[in-house]
Amino acid sequence: MSYDKVALIGLGLIASSMYWAMKRAGMAAHVSGYARSSETRETARRIGLCDTVCDSAEEAVKDADLIVLAVPVGAMGRVAEAIAPHLKPGATVTDVGSVKKAVIDEVGPHIPEGVNFVPAHPMAGTEHSGPESGFASLYDNRWCLIVPHGASEEATAALETYWQALGANTQRMEPAHHDLVCAVVSHVPHLIAYTMVGVADDLRRVSDQEVIKFSAAGFRDFTRIAASDPTMWRDVFLTNKEASLEILGRFTEELFALQRAIRTGDGDTLFDYFTHTREIRRGILQAGQDTDAPDFGRIRKE
Amino acid sequence: MSYDKVALIGLGLIASSMYWAMKRAGMAAHVSGYARSSETRETARRIGLCDTVCDSAEEAVKDADLIVLAVPVGAMGRVAEAIAPHLKPGATVTDVGSVKKAVIDEVGPHIPEGVNFVPAHPMAGTEHSGPESGFASLYDNRWCLIVPHGASEEATAALETYWQALGANTQRMEPAHHDLVCAVVSHVPHLIAYTMVGVADDLRRVSDQEVIKFSAAGFRDFTRIAASDPTMWRDVFLTNKEASLEILGRFTEELFALQRAIRTGDGDTLFDYFTHTREIRRGILQAGQDTDAPDFGRIRKE
Ligand SMILES: NC(=O)c1ccc[n+]([C@@H]2O[C@H](COP(=O)([O-])OP(=O)(O)OC[C@H]3O[C@@H](n4cnc5c(N)ncnc54)[C@H](OP(=O)(O)O)[C@@H]3O)[C@@H](O)[C@H]2O)c1
Ligand SMILES: NC(=O)c1ccc[n+]([C@@H]2O[C@H](COP(=O)([O-])OP(=O)(O)OC[C@H]3O[C@@H](n4cnc5c(N)ncnc54)[C@H](OP(=O)(O)O)[C@@H]3O)[C@@H](O)[C@H]2O)c1
Repeated sequence: MSYDKVALIGLGLIASSMYWAMKRAGMAAHVSGYARSSETRETARRIGLCDTVCDSAEEAVKDADLIVLAVPVGAMGRVAEAIAPHLKPGATVTDVGSVKKAVIDEVGPHIPEGVNFVPAHPMAGTEHSGPESGFASLYDNRWCLIVPHGASEEATAALETYWQALGANTQRMEPAHHDLVCAVVSHVPHLIAYTMVGVADDLRRVSDQEVIKFSAAGFRDFTRIAASDPTMWRDVFLTNKEASLEILGRFTEELFALQRAIRTGDGDTLFDYFTHTREIRRGILQAGQDTDAPDFGRIRKE
Repeated sequence: MSYDKVALIGLGLIASSMYWAMKRAGMAAHVSGYARSSETRETARRIGLCDTVCDSAEEAVKDADLIVLAVPVGAMGRVAEAIAPHLKPGATVTDVGSVKKAVIDEVGPHIPEGVNFVPAHPMAGTEHSGPESGFASLYDNRWCLIVPHGASEEATAALETYWQALGANTQRMEPAHHDLVCAVVSHVPHLIAYTMVGVADDLRRVSDQEVIKFSAAGFRDFTRIAASDPTMWRDVFLTNKEASLEILGRFTEELFALQRAIRTGDGDTLFDYFTHTREIRRGILQAGQDTDAPDFGRIRKE
């Protein structure tokens, strides 16, 4: 089963990359798109993003077989509510949100009988956003997590095939587990990076000039992360509260232990800790998950 | 003034890269080298690292015009003590330690009258270590901070010229300021990365497999950092205690504020914080300090 018509609701980095990847894959589907602001819709028309750019979400989802919600996590519920009455029976609604439990809670209740809802999360991105930031190869060899949570096998499998055609590997996961894994490998690392940049920015004794000039030494990637879209990340932390706070709690606990070791001059504790963490890196190398471009999961447009 | 004989004490990443960069630059200086273990000395002889590999530090520094201490920060004092009686009058001793106040305190007292001590710190590295990890381009366009702290202008200028010939830009800095800047842009970011990897490794509910598999999403660079040499980093935190603890204090303070905003659902605080930190990134882009290979200041061997 493939989709004859795909509707992209929200036309930012994720949706525009999906569009270019669909075209690259030679998919025949007609793609309609809708974004909230007329500015984004104009831009989309100008750059040829989507086969049709619609002035309402209602119009965009009309007759669509696959509807992709590609707006910030906090806006998913309202968007779902608005399009619900206009969904075709048998259609599949999916989303690309970075958090899954909250999206299921917010979107799920609006999905009418006879429509499938298959949440998903492509684990790929850059620090750029908006309709002009997308590119066809964003999802190549990246993971797209599929969270069926009760959707039909047929609808789930079709969505997997779709994401694979866009270049991604797919894996099914439970909502709560998804949110915890993402808190560890993405959300909390991002919060930490934001914080570290905030600290540097705040320190008047280390002039901004110096922080910028010498930023190559461990800090530059933090600033890249800290340039990510504030709305998206606000929504991630507000909606993945539980897992984020749990991982943050663990993080500060461990950090305090190391801080104490520094204060008391306990070199053995530091040495053992630093030795232990080497193992996980070895695992990543063995799993072939390293590339020459460490980038916090970001991919650069060629 | 250029050096006729250069002695490298310690033959790891930093010293071996210096050797290859000296050869690349066509420097005429004879380079003698010494490492603590016979294993490293054997390796150095096998791969042609140094013109002469000596079996004692005393022999290596004999007649040398420039002596480079390239051992972990915590070992600098003992090495300086051992070589002190064998230094040629008029020679310059320098080091490459990541911390400067502690090195000055430990090494300074051993430097005899008539010998110059000009501490330095090349801000470049990889997560690899040992005699085989070095390469000629490590210092290209990187900053080497020079901390004269009372050395003669002539000796200081000569060391600057030397580092520039190895490919680096140089800048003079006061010891305490150096340690604070490095705590912000390098030391604390490294500690945070070690901690985040430790947390992930510890979480049994997120299997190691998953952390490794999905590590592309923000976490992989943390694991790269956390694979850095434990001895070097233990010494950095033990010897740059004051600045590290100060920056860590600021960091946890800010992190708690964000954690609280997450807990209380205060989206405005999160949004404002994330918007503010974007500015510093803009500064870095404007300063031309970004490259296509975000790498925590690491450079990869081609
Ligand atoms: N960027 C990443 O790294 C990444 C990775 C994986 C998943 N995701 C998820 O993908 C989704 C989209 O992210 P993105 O990076 O594509 O964002 P983006 O580039 O900022 O685009 C967001 C789109 O959503 C629209 N939008 C924003 N707020 C809205 C609201 N309140 N109501 C309706 N529409 C709204 C925007 O419309 P206007 O243009 O008209 O303002 C825009 O078209 C998010 O849920 C995010 O969590 C992002
Ligand atoms: N790596 C970086 O990212 C980086 C960046 C800037 C500055 N630095 C500084 O550069 C210095 C050297 O670092 P590196 O990366 O070159 O380290 P490395 O590759 O691990 O090499 C360290 C060298 O020091 C010797 N050594 C270790 N412990 C010693 C001891 N207790 N007494 C005498 N010799 C000892 C080792 O001898 P054996 O081989 O015989 O064990 C080896 O030759 C450190 O002070 C570090 O702070 C490092």
